[in-house]
Amino acid sequence: MHRLCIHTITTKPWPLDEAVRNYAAAGVRHITVWRDAIAPRTPAEAGKLIRDHGLSVTSLCRGGFFPAPAAAARAKAIDENRRCLDEAAALGAPHLVLVCGAAPGQTLAESRKQIADGIAALLPHAAATGVKLAIEPLHPMYAGDRSAVNTLAQARALCRALASPHVGIAADTYHIWWDDDLENQIELAARENLLLAYHICDWRVPTTDFLNDRGLMGEGVIPLRQITAWINRTGCAAPIEVEIFSTRLWAADQHAFLKNIIQAYKQHVL
Amino acid sequence: MHRLCIHTITTKPWPLDEAVRNYAAAGVRHITVWRDAIAPRTPAEAGKLIRDHGLSVTSLCRGGFFPAPAAAARAKAIDENRRCLDEAAALGAPHLVLVCGAAPGQTLAESRKQIADGIAALLPHAAATGVKLAIEPLHPMYAGDRSAVNTLAQARALCRALASPHVGIAADTYHIWWDDDLENQIELAARENLLLAYHICDWRVPTTDFLNDRGLMGEGVIPLRQITAWINRTGCAAPIEVEIFSTRLWAADQHAFLKNIIQAYKQHVL
Repeated sequence: MHRLCIHTITTKPWPLDEAVRNYAAAGVRHITVWRDAIAPRTPAEAGKLIRDHGLSVTSLCRGGFFPAPAAAARAKAIDENRRCLDEAAALGAPHLVLVCGAAPGQTLAESRKQIADGIAALLPHAAATGVKLAIEPLHPMYAGDRSAVNTLAQARALCRALASPHVGIAADTYHIWWDDDLENQIELAARENLLLAYHICDWRVPTTDFLNDRGLMGEGVIPLRQITAWINRTGCAAPIEVEIFSTRLWAADQHAFLKNIIQAYKQHVL
Repeated sequence: MHRLCIHTITTKPWPLDEAVRNYAAAGVRHITVWRDAIAPRTPAEAGKLIRDHGLSVTSLCRGGFFPAPAAAARAKAIDENRRCLDEAAALGAPHLVLVCGAAPGQTLAESRKQIADGIAALLPHAAATGVKLAIEPLHPMYAGDRSAVNTLAQARALCRALASPHVGIAADTYHIWWDDDLENQIELAARENLLLAYHICDWRVPTTDFLNDRGLMGEGVIPLRQITAWINRTGCAAPIEVEIFSTRLWAADQHAFLKNIIQAYKQHVL
């Protein structure tokens, strides 16, 4: 249980105080906070609430969304990401997860350049706040509108180009499980000191919604125990973060769901 | 117009004779036949019907689906693929497109091994019939249940392992457009004499269905003119095949749709 982390969005019906109280009571020791879960508290108050219950903050989700055809929109996105870094620092989160974005009106190559430029512009503020930027490669099915960064290899290349100790990678099984070079890419990312965060959930067959039909571990086809073993073999001891978006699971009793998360984590991940 | 090809499934409401008659009248000179469009004719009769209207057959769609936990099921799939090769030969199709398959009950690595074994077992029959096997890498969103071969790089590695003149690749923009190494992979596939077929359609934003929400060229975000230029630069002069699965477009008047296909091809591809 010492590595289990839950994302606030996984139990979306619970406000932050309820999530923190219930996670703590169930023995969960880490939490990743989504920005929408902070209000009405300040990030510092939210961080204190979390620590007062004996939990630590793994990451803040999420910044990113850098590409846009207009320069003004890109500058606005960078400003927003600076606010995210401030929030992460106040919350006590060591990382800010980045969903990098994609702009339908331009090529992926252009979006990728704008992502690199956007992250580069953030580096001084990342250094100042002490919060690292965790680039999360998103599944290729999101390349049209959510992220032009779609594989670990590509995220690694982006990190190499940025060449900064303030940048790394969030590896999410949902996005990368299909990659035939996955074992090798995990090893390389770890060797390059880029592996900052590890997210899990499952891929249901069939999956019926592009966003909100993720599965609880064991409900799908991702070999979570195998991928987690690859992660662990690198020496990575980061929290193992349960991040599930599911209309179906959000509609269920969240206390029962939390019990199921813990059971599925023990049965299908460890 | 000399390279435009249409898949029978694109105008699914039309039976084969109607499709052939309408394609021919519109100046389309190539057709890819889906197996379900052949009956009640024999493949030889279907081929004759097509040639009598001045069209040529580009491919037969589709064989594949090799992986299965049980050996008997895998042997059955290989037999079915031999029948596909016979049908392709009788139809006069130089290629059989392979959707390689994936079995939810086992790892992708195991499915990939079974795919390689399945194709290897087919090679003598491919040689005997003179029909090439065109491996189609499918979008990673299908790795759970439809294909464990998901990138051009992976399809190339599979072809290298098989080392046979009877095996190549069908490159479909819908499946590979997101790949940050796409231009290079197309060039390498062509250099290795693997580029057998080229399929087009568009990726809608948002896409609302995993199977049947493909877009007509120009309706989405795939840079079709750019990718087609990369294909052409290799010297590849294969037909450009319009393969669209769309509940929305199948529900429309198919004569108007055929006109739109031709206009979209001229406007967004050439």
